[in-house]
Parts: sequence; C-alpha cells; structure tokens
Amino acid sequence: MSRQSEFQKVELIDTVQFGRVLVIDGVFMTSERDEHLYHEMIVHPAMVTHPNPQSVLVIGGGDGGTAREVLRHPTVQTCTMVEIDALVVEACKLHLPSLGAWDDPRLQLRIEDGIQFVRETDARFDIVILDGTDPQGPAEGLFNESFYRNVHRVLRSGGIFALQSEGPFFFPEVFRAIQVSLAKVFAQVAPYFGSVPLYSAGPWSWTWASDRQDLTPSTLPATSEKRAVEIEKVTRYWNREIQKAAFALPSELRKV
Amino acid sequence: MSRQSEFQKVELIDTVQFGRVLVIDGVFMTSERDEHLYHEMIVHPAMVTHPNPQSVLVIGGGDGGTAREVLRHPTVQTCTMVEIDALVVEACKLHLPSLGAWDDPRLQLRIEDGIQFVRETDARFDIVILDGTDPQGPAEGLFNESFYRNVHRVLRSGGIFALQSEGPFFFPEVFRAIQVSLAKVFAQVAPYFGSVPLYSAGPWSWTWASDRQDLTPSTLPATSEKRAVEIEKVTRYWNREIQKAAFALPSELRKV
Repeated sequence: MSRQSEFQKVELIDTVQFGRVLVIDGVFMTSERDEHLYHEMIVHPAMVTHPNPQSVLVIGGGDGGTAREVLRHPTVQTCTMVEIDALVVEACKLHLPSLGAWDDPRLQLRIEDGIQFVRETDARFDIVILDGTDPQGPAEGLFNESFYRNVHRVLRSGGIFALQSEGPFFFPEVFRAIQVSLAKVFAQVAPYFGSVPLYSAGPWSWTWASDRQDLTPSTLPATSEKRAVEIEKVTRYWNREIQKAAFALPSELRKV
Repeated sequence: MSRQSEFQKVELIDTVQFGRVLVIDGVFMTSERDEHLYHEMIVHPAMVTHPNPQSVLVIGGGDGGTAREVLRHPTVQTCTMVEIDALVVEACKLHLPSLGAWDDPRLQLRIEDGIQFVRETDARFDIVILDGTDPQGPAEGLFNESFYRNVHRVLRSGGIFALQSEGPFFFPEVFRAIQVSLAKVFAQVAPYFGSVPLYSAGPWSWTWASDRQDLTPSTLPATSEKRAVEIEKVTRYWNREIQKAAFALPSELRKV
C-alpha cells in the first residue's frame, strides 16, 4: 500500500531481504525481519533499570512494536501511546500485525501531537520512550531541549527517558546534538549501541537519560532481576549481558 | 582502477559515503571511512588476550590494515603476512596507503597461498589471524575444518586464532558452520560482534579460538593491561570496554 496522510507518505513494501517494510516519506522505518533489534533495544534497557515501571508513555511508535515490548513487563498498568498519524497505526494494524499488542487492555492509544501532549498533560509517567522518525518533517520538534524539558516535566521523580538517537557513524552531528541537549536537562545521559540492519547505518544508537543518581544505566537494580529473567525468555536479541555490553562507548565517541 | 589478476577482479572506487573503497570480485572489502572498525576488531581482541604475542601470522589481509594493527603491539618481533594475490597488495600500497604499515621492518610479506602455507610451514606462531574474503572464490578453502586443523598445527601451545566470521544476521548458515567447525578443533571458541557499515549486514562477527583454558576471551591477562592502555591511545573504535562488550551474545545466537 501507499497512501498520503495529513502528515506524511506511508508505504508498506514487500522485500526479499527484510520481509514487509514500513516506509515513511521514503525512509525505511521498520521491517518484519529486524524490528526486534530496534524495539527490544529502545524499550528494555529503560524498563529493567527502573525498579517498578507502572506507567509508561510512548511518543510515536505508531507501528506498535515499542508498546508491545513495554507491555511484556507485568509491572505496567498503563501504556499510553501518543502517535500523531492515525494512518501509520491503521496501516500497521492491517499489514504488520505481528508488531503490535493492540488488544492489550493496558494500552491507551491517543492520536495526538506528542509535543503538545507532554507540554499540556497532567499525567505523570515512570518511563517515557520517544520512538520518532528522523529529525526532519513532523518529528523535527522531538529533537530539542525544549521538548526534552517537557518530557522531564511529565516524568515522575526517578523516572527514565529512552529515545532513538540516530546512527553516530553517518550522522555524528545529530547524535552529538541530542546528547548535548539531553545533558542540559537530565543528570545522567548514556548512549548505547546496537545494530539495525534496515538502516544500513553502521552502529545504531539509543540513549538512556534520568535524574536518578542511585542507578547506573548498565546495571539492574536487584528488584528488576526476576522480571528481566522472564523478559529474556521471549526476546530474540536483548538479554542482560547484551544490555550491559550495549553501553560500552567506542573510543571515537568518548569526546562527544 | 580496475584490474583482473590471476585470482580475482580488483577495483578501487571513490565514493561519497565511504571515501575510497576496495572492491574484489564485486564485493565491498574495506573503505577509508570505516576500515578501522573492521581491522581493530579482527586484531586487538586476540592480541591483548595473549600475554606476550611475539610471532604473528596474517593470512590474507592484502590491504595491509590487519598487519598495521598487529604491528602496533611492541611485543611483536615478526608479522608474517601470507597473501595470495600480489595485485591486491600493489593496488592498496598505491591507492590506500593509510591502511598499511608496509615499511615496518618486522613485516614479512609473502605472496603465497595461505592454505598451502599452513599445511607445509615449519614456523610456529603465537597468533594467527585469518583476514580473508567471503567463502566463495579463492577464499573457499579458508572456511573448513581441515584448514582450521592446519592453523592449529602452526600455533604455538597457548596460541590464539582470530578470524572474520561473516554477518550472522544475513548469513546465519555460514556463521554457524564456522563456529561448528572451529569447535571441533579448538577447546574454546567465542564469537564476538561489532559493526562494519560498508557491509550493510547488521552486526558483523569475528571469532576468537584457542586451546588455552586459563584465559577467557573477554578478560585481559594482567600482563597485557599496560600494552592495552597504550594501544587504546591510537585506536578509534576498540578499547578494553568495547572488547569485553563485544563478546556478549544476542539471545537468538545462543542456540548456535
């Protein structure tokens, strides 16, 4: 399918290498074949370093994969997903159903602008996950200090923010700008790395940010250990060893 | 340039994304822009887990990058490089000079068949590094148990073998076959992971193999620590933290 929404062009194509692929404004977003590498890594590091994540906000993530991984955690009571584009959700429900956990009663889907939502809502969250497109088009406002301050505002004390932060190999400036802006808002900011073959970008990065001083992002609190063991039984890439390893910083990124 | 040798077609092309790229038989081999990600990772894990590597054999590696990284270790007295194709060496000396340490007097270059070399030589080595092309064409014989037995034969007691072992995401069968064959020959076999953007293959793998029971591949012996610190000052990707992290095994590869 190929359709234009109010915000962007949404396409689904079938490929030999990646199976079905979601393409937005001509950019590969996610695929059947490698979506777990992205979604497991944007979700579980934040979820397991929080001792008891009950209330989670996902901004973007219209394909459903991020919410699906969040909902694997039995501590979660509500997962609020704020996606700007109803067409992405509709298209993925129909054409990429394995990505979503759409029937989970804990999922609260809102078709709204995430930027406005974090500026105005009275709700508070243990975890906020930003699963947006690249910083062009509708997602542009999701990559700056002012947005991060509003994310900080809606986090409960001790909450954790996780986001995709682009590939530092081909986009070092974008990667660097995200880290610098986050560091103005959060006491601890730690990028971590993995691989998303669909993006053909070398190492991909996500970033973990929090004001919590009692946690390090590569170490689980004791209260999370049992939950992590259970999650590990269903994930295909992520595990506790990968989690710890992902925070190792390549030498050339140390100066960033 | 584009020339056909007795063995293969050797080309160098200039690209926007990767700078100058070496292409052999139509397959991207290495590039100015990301060669360090490959060469640092094929060399340093084996070199620093050996307490005192003096004699090193590189099989293949005609672009010079692997030997250059080996020669960063001051313990090395000789680095023997056995490359089958003189044209690769000539072309890279001329067009990719930053990859080589061709003038180092410890480098002994032999234009010979590596398979025959490990079958017949009386020399013995602390480290053997296999830096070959993919298992098609002239490198086919570098990916089987019989070749690995000859590598084992030329290793000194306690020696370590390191090799590139393909991308497990797109080539799970090749990756698996390499691990299984190595396990028939070496007491310890440990794959490790990184990213080589040029290969567009998701995570890339290398493998560390040895009969040493007193070492684990993710831990440095105390005698290597000072050397590792010095190497870390010149590498752009590899460092001790990355080394340890690289051996974390994704869940879907645990069953391999």
